[in-house]
Amino acid sequence: MEIEYCTQCRWLLRAAWTAQELLTTFGLRLGEVALVPGTGGVFEIRLDDETIWSRKASGFPDLAELKRLVRDRIAPELSLGHSDNR
Amino acid sequence: MEIEYCTQCRWLLRAAWTAQELLTTFGLRLGEVALVPGTGGVFEIRLDDETIWSRKASGFPDLAELKRLVRDRIAPELSLGHSDNR
Repeated sequence: MEIEYCTQCRWLLRAAWTAQELLTTFGLRLGEVALVPGTGGVFEIRLDDETIWSRKASGFPDLAELKRLVRDRIAPELSLGHSDNR
Repeated sequence: MEIEYCTQCRWLLRAAWTAQELLTTFGLRLGEVALVPGTGGVFEIRLDDETIWSRKASGFPDLAELKRLVRDRIAPELSLGHSDNR
């Protein structure tokens, strides 16, 4: 999957944190998480070329919600522990 | 480019830090930096499918040296400041 972030907005740290959260949760189930530098206020998360989160549409993602979106697509049997209970 | 890291060895944080260093230095000059979960003690950095660093051959990379390797390939005119002077 890919996280495209706006370099002008200095969202690299936020993007890298999001990537680490996803890789910590899903590990080898994810082929990769790519950090993609962009411009113009972009913060978009794509999985197999489908945009599953866009800041312009929905603000920044809640991590628990984002993990559920990813889980439902790549590992529907996986329990997310407390992230499932919000 | 890609950074493949060993999940069993818990090298995600190291890989993510390396990715952030490269993206901070090269920004939009890099199309993307992908974090790729792997196994078996792998810590490999690839640029356009060429392996430019492998832990098994060379240990963990010195960041200044790694940045010079990347700079020489993607932006030979770019000054790296103090990283050029070691």
